[in-house]
Amino acid sequence: MVETPRSAAPRAGHLLIIGGAEDKLRQRQILSRFVNLAGVHDARVVVISTASSLGDEATELYRSLFHAMGVGEVRGIRPLSREEANDPRLAELLDEATGIFMTGGNQLRLASVIGGTLLGRAIVDRHRHGAIVAGTSAGASAISSYMVAFGTSGATPKQRMTQLSAGLGLLNGAIIDQHFEQRNRIGRLLALVAQSPSLLGIGIDEDTAALVTPSGMLEVLGKGSVTILDPTKIQTDAYEVKRHRPIMVSGVILHSLPAGYRFDLRRRRLLAPLRPVASTDRELASLEAAGRQARRLVRRIAAEGTDELATERRRRRSLRAKRDEEASE
Amino acid sequence: MVETPRSAAPRAGHLLIIGGAEDKLRQRQILSRFVNLAGVHDARVVVISTASSLGDEATELYRSLFHAMGVGEVRGIRPLSREEANDPRLAELLDEATGIFMTGGNQLRLASVIGGTLLGRAIVDRHRHGAIVAGTSAGASAISSYMVAFGTSGATPKQRMTQLSAGLGLLNGAIIDQHFEQRNRIGRLLALVAQSPSLLGIGIDEDTAALVTPSGMLEVLGKGSVTILDPTKIQTDAYEVKRHRPIMVSGVILHSLPAGYRFDLRRRRLLAPLRPVASTDRELASLEAAGRQARRLVRRIAAEGTDELATERRRRRSLRAKRDEEASE
Repeated sequence: MVETPRSAAPRAGHLLIIGGAEDKLRQRQILSRFVNLAGVHDARVVVISTASSLGDEATELYRSLFHAMGVGEVRGIRPLSREEANDPRLAELLDEATGIFMTGGNQLRLASVIGGTLLGRAIVDRHRHGAIVAGTSAGASAISSYMVAFGTSGATPKQRMTQLSAGLGLLNGAIIDQHFEQRNRIGRLLALVAQSPSLLGIGIDEDTAALVTPSGMLEVLGKGSVTILDPTKIQTDAYEVKRHRPIMVSGVILHSLPAGYRFDLRRRRLLAPLRPVASTDRELASLEAAGRQARRLVRRIAAEGTDELATERRRRRSLRAKRDEEASE
Repeated sequence: MVETPRSAAPRAGHLLIIGGAEDKLRQRQILSRFVNLAGVHDARVVVISTASSLGDEATELYRSLFHAMGVGEVRGIRPLSREEANDPRLAELLDEATGIFMTGGNQLRLASVIGGTLLGRAIVDRHRHGAIVAGTSAGASAISSYMVAFGTSGATPKQRMTQLSAGLGLLNGAIIDQHFEQRNRIGRLLALVAQSPSLLGIGIDEDTAALVTPSGMLEVLGKGSVTILDPTKIQTDAYEVKRHRPIMVSGVILHSLPAGYRFDLRRRRLLAPLRPVASTDRELASLEAAGRQARRLVRRIAAEGTDELATERRRRRSLRAKRDEEASE
């Protein structure tokens, strides 16, 4: 069963799980929801940028955005060792937080620095007492108890294509994956639920988010879709497939839900939309005025990690060139 | 219900539906199955290269391969207009065929030149009377009654991302897609079954094939997997989504089947494997000696269409560079 820990507790908060590359310059639909649920003018937001190798700049980007969106108070923290994350003064900064936002970057750094420390426990505790916790990209991955540490792309599930590790434990019973459509990650999420059929697979596209209530109702926001893989009735040979070979999965139930649709994570079924799913839910608004500083920061953040990605793309291009036999549509 | 036309007729043949880029130099597992089912030394094979813009060279490649694999007689035909495809002398060439092989290229050219002509009817007739009909890449797409004409990549189903047209009608009740994993086509196949929930979606990876018996039993061969999307219980808003927006699909049953697994297309369920699925089923054999001519032809065929693909890749790289915000795994 998917549930946020002690969901029956009074005033537990929401989770906002963002697939990365959320709109920062236009309508900011996803970030606005975070700001609203954190309390806008009364909000006290803590940005945690441990995942990002750009660190302070990532903090600065979100600080500037949240201020522009009316948030009363924004603090940035960036522990880089478990020692720092165990510093009680750092954890105390969360005491009054109404919103916690975890940036993108490398989720293994985020979870291995913070998981199980005073700060890690403070995040879970604040969420339990009403704070909204949001994570984008790597920050999204770290929200679940079982975290995708890293892996490869591709639509077909294969053995050893991805690794699990322990996340921050804010959402139980599910595995989260992000940049889902853009980085072609359905194969690895299928492989993960085939090996752990008690878990639900949740794949979130870029500029798209899953907003999860304390009672496990998921609502989709943003431009793309949230893919849910339900392995309740799976048949699979994942337990015996050798090396990197394809895994057989049969009977996985797939849901692909755009903005406005809702899903009950506990009962694993589609819910009626809150209201008719209007076209405006899925439409990009026209470009809003955005400060020059925010734009410059967005561009710098956008450059992060592109070297590794470029290398990987070159490798794939070369593989693909060897493979492309026909130009079939 | 998925069935090959008049499947109860005596001596109806198999269909071998190949996802493209099938191994031609090593173990040739898929092509060997075609040769065996066509009768090897007694085989009379007709190669149809209408889909390929390289035409005669594509014919020459397969002619040389099939000869090297022991096929008694190989003819190549390449009608490029409906007038040619309606020439009775061309259709007569199929009279004694035990195997028909359709190359890759552009399935819309293949189906629009041949569909509904004397030659098109002769293919269906020969299959009904026992000939195996194989198609790779574009040739695979054209096998089903409803054919993917063209479309875009991506894991999330979106309105207008792909177009259907009429195929050659050798397999009813299903839509075939190819290069499935390599070109990230699950989104378009989901969109298609969401709009046509009476059909089964069948996505075939490269160097992988679905061998379908006249009674609708599908067996997987080759290196990758065959993905089957069963929309029997789908809930969707595909009928009302506007423009290019994401489509909601809920309750699609997904199967991803590697070599050795079998699926009943009529009852839409996994079958017990014919034998324990041995690791060798999925293993590539060591490089076999292959003639210099075959290698040269393979390289030339491999170059076909790469210009368009390179342009498309450049476009996507540029889009992706704008989009990559973080290096999250």
